[in-house]
Amino acid sequence: MGTRFSVTPVDAAEIGGYDHETDVLIVGYGCAGASAALEAAEAGSDVVLLERQSGGGGSSALSGGEMYLGGGTAVQEACGFTDTAEDMEKFLLAALGPDADVDKVGLYSRESLGHYQWLVDRGVPFKPSLWDSPTWVPPTDDGLMWMGENAYPFCRIAEPAPRGHRVTSDGFGGKVLMAVLSEAVEASGVTVHTDTTALRLIIDRSDGNRIVGLVARHFNDIVTYRARRGVIITTGGFADNAELVAEHAPQLVGLGVNSDGGDDGRGIVIAQAVGAAVRHMSAGQVGISAVPGMMVRGMVVDNLGRRFINEDVYPGLIGQAALFKHGLHVWVILDEQAYEEIPVDERWGVRPHFVAETLAELEHEIGMPAGALQSTVGEYNRHAERGEDPYFHKASRWVRPLRSPFAAVDVRRGMSAPSDGGTEGGGGAAVFTIGGLHTTVDGNVLNLDGNAIPGLFAAGRATSGLHSWGYISGTSLGDGTFFGRRAGVAAAAG
Amino acid sequence: MGTRFSVTPVDAAEIGGYDHETDVLIVGYGCAGASAALEAAEAGSDVVLLERQSGGGGSSALSGGEMYLGGGTAVQEACGFTDTAEDMEKFLLAALGPDADVDKVGLYSRESLGHYQWLVDRGVPFKPSLWDSPTWVPPTDDGLMWMGENAYPFCRIAEPAPRGHRVTSDGFGGKVLMAVLSEAVEASGVTVHTDTTALRLIIDRSDGNRIVGLVARHFNDIVTYRARRGVIITTGGFADNAELVAEHAPQLVGLGVNSDGGDDGRGIVIAQAVGAAVRHMSAGQVGISAVPGMMVRGMVVDNLGRRFINEDVYPGLIGQAALFKHGLHVWVILDEQAYEEIPVDERWGVRPHFVAETLAELEHEIGMPAGALQSTVGEYNRHAERGEDPYFHKASRWVRPLRSPFAAVDVRRGMSAPSDGGTEGGGGAAVFTIGGLHTTVDGNVLNLDGNAIPGLFAAGRATSGLHSWGYISGTSLGDGTFFGRRAGVAAAAG
Repeated sequence: MGTRFSVTPVDAAEIGGYDHETDVLIVGYGCAGASAALEAAEAGSDVVLLERQSGGGGSSALSGGEMYLGGGTAVQEACGFTDTAEDMEKFLLAALGPDADVDKVGLYSRESLGHYQWLVDRGVPFKPSLWDSPTWVPPTDDGLMWMGENAYPFCRIAEPAPRGHRVTSDGFGGKVLMAVLSEAVEASGVTVHTDTTALRLIIDRSDGNRIVGLVARHFNDIVTYRARRGVIITTGGFADNAELVAEHAPQLVGLGVNSDGGDDGRGIVIAQAVGAAVRHMSAGQVGISAVPGMMVRGMVVDNLGRRFINEDVYPGLIGQAALFKHGLHVWVILDEQAYEEIPVDERWGVRPHFVAETLAELEHEIGMPAGALQSTVGEYNRHAERGEDPYFHKASRWVRPLRSPFAAVDVRRGMSAPSDGGTEGGGGAAVFTIGGLHTTVDGNVLNLDGNAIPGLFAAGRATSGLHSWGYISGTSLGDGTFFGRRAGVAAAAG
Repeated sequence: MGTRFSVTPVDAAEIGGYDHETDVLIVGYGCAGASAALEAAEAGSDVVLLERQSGGGGSSALSGGEMYLGGGTAVQEACGFTDTAEDMEKFLLAALGPDADVDKVGLYSRESLGHYQWLVDRGVPFKPSLWDSPTWVPPTDDGLMWMGENAYPFCRIAEPAPRGHRVTSDGFGGKVLMAVLSEAVEASGVTVHTDTTALRLIIDRSDGNRIVGLVARHFNDIVTYRARRGVIITTGGFADNAELVAEHAPQLVGLGVNSDGGDDGRGIVIAQAVGAAVRHMSAGQVGISAVPGMMVRGMVVDNLGRRFINEDVYPGLIGQAALFKHGLHVWVILDEQAYEEIPVDERWGVRPHFVAETLAELEHEIGMPAGALQSTVGEYNRHAERGEDPYFHKASRWVRPLRSPFAAVDVRRGMSAPSDGGTEGGGGAAVFTIGGLHTTVDGNVLNLDGNAIPGLFAAGRATSGLHSWGYISGTSLGDGTFFGRRAGVAAAAG
């Protein structure tokens, strides 16, 4: 681990007395921890919520604020879309796979309308207007976004409807979501201990190896917590822990990270140390450092000038393909018309790194083999004359021949402006991890035998959640709040 | 796990008496287990070696019998090659990365000459003659093979020398290796218990959580083993466990498996259940169902007719690129001259699935976009006229223009003939897992804190070995025997 403190659990018999006692102890005050706290308190439990930083919010508060919701929400209906839980489920199984968690995706889809209402009832704002173009975060305050549901192949797998519900905000909505949830937490009687870092779980070997508490650090003091009903781990992923990333997700090494800097995976590892199983630790969201509005109006090519995906999918899927298949040696190619068509505030300050009158000049300037771009764009244009993209099936709306002058953006140079998809440095992408603890739909953490570890629960990016390998924006705040709530209910029931 | 037996460790205090006692208990009779047994016995320990099957050999005995060795072995010198440990180390770090195990690769390279001699002293035969073309297994009894050391980019990273030492055999050499090692085991006084499956480790909580034995199953009987000095896990990988593969290596789901059918990962999981850490569980060797002699003389293209790698690298690297980057929707394209040039016994019975006079006909027949193959082969030929491959840098020896008539092999249809690289069914590839227990160079299994678990050792494909993500043939028999030996020494020392 390379951490200063052991993760080995402490035997309850060794604890003389506890500094704090509660019914439900929650570790990590992001969206999953806040949601768990609200439900546990609602169920009548005493709740203590720990946070390492000096205030709540975590990586959730720094995110774009998208929540993947559907089945016919008021926002969808106001924007003129019909939707069903079945289509939502089909889309998610296709987009988050292979082998996404069938039980979680099914439940999440069927209960999405109710979860939307729970969020709205707590004051989370969603403006009923559609941003109708691929983006990381709309430059407007529009509340509904496509997440590639209308792009190939997903549009053939499930009836398309936009399900990206974006918390109303000027810019990133994560801070608004966490402000609303924090206000609710404050009103709920939950006790919040900040500046408190989880160190080791406490296990009662005389009571079926039940998890009964936690050893933590508060500044320089070691403090102990007893949890009468359960401990819920909502500490996020491990993208900030370079050692764990190298060991489990080597393809993510050396890239930028989307987090509050504290996603060190310790919550996952202290649970493993009491026998917890993990899943999909190699998977990651890849926020490619490119403007979706540019990619979709032009094309994305590899270092040999070849397209590899339809550019109207969720940009994170472009990012995964660019990283895992092309080592992020990829370029955005566009023409002047495409660049001019993109609203200025949707360009995030990105300007082309190379411009040229001809493709021959452009490919020469950026060091591609002679003919590389000429053949790709020639073939693209030939079909684009008819609005078609037989190679990758980009929607005809975005297909037209590219004409001189041409421009190229080097994705590895990054973007100066931030986005929740990941744009700050790191050689072309910012990432976070998707894998984590193996949990039931009620948040019980499973051990290596597949049995629930008594007294231990988890939610959010500390778990493997809905996902296997794929990722769609909105499914972290989405499954964090949804399964966080369920973990809160389950822990309160003891 | 979906197994019938819990993996949770048994407390030594609960064991009334042991059915068997020994100094060193080794679980799994493949190359790692045999090597560990020989060294532990040599050090004067009583050794019991368990094997689930009715005889030793395991997946090692079914392998091609390649061992990655170098630094100037007698075989290399007899074939006219000089080599150094430094070049071997540089090659392995590049080929097995990113982030291959620096300590293990360094030690393995520095001590390779000594390990070669140990093998030879025990009777392992290596014929000092070179097979000078990419292959899974030579159709001759030649004992030295290139493993892509002379291919781009590796030839620029380290001075090339062939290091694939292939145990002399008519066909696959794994059975010869295991016959030799088994004979040595038999002569060494090691006790072998066959038909015995490991179930759970025994942990002594009153002695620093030391591993002191194992609960196993012998037919219908539960039997207990006490190990006074240590337990060594050499049970292989988890490619045969569909559930574990889906949870940790989702990209390998549904493919064929190279194993003896028993690589269910149980050895890894019972160690995790006593706190062991794992690494690189997502990584896999990908034995693409294609004939290296065909690939290198023609080209490998994706479903859009595009090359993606120099075809003279180790074929497993072509396989990884084909699977992880192109979903195995890949084709081998060649011309009549290339096909005729391949010795019949090197074709493994594979014949083209499509033949055509023109590339336009061929791409039409196999369902590629019109122009796809014409542009790729046209560009390839244009440079091949000068013996060059500026796109992927295949060695000039293998580069010449392809001429009508043309042929295509559909990789997903598999091969009828076997090969160690994996050719039996499974939609275009046979795989095995590379990740596993985190061990020191002495075979100590590390826990989540990075500390050795007292009494627990491991080697072979149950560990993450030399590798991170990459793989080169010969590094499994190689690190299995090398680190198996070291684990045997360390366990015997207690």
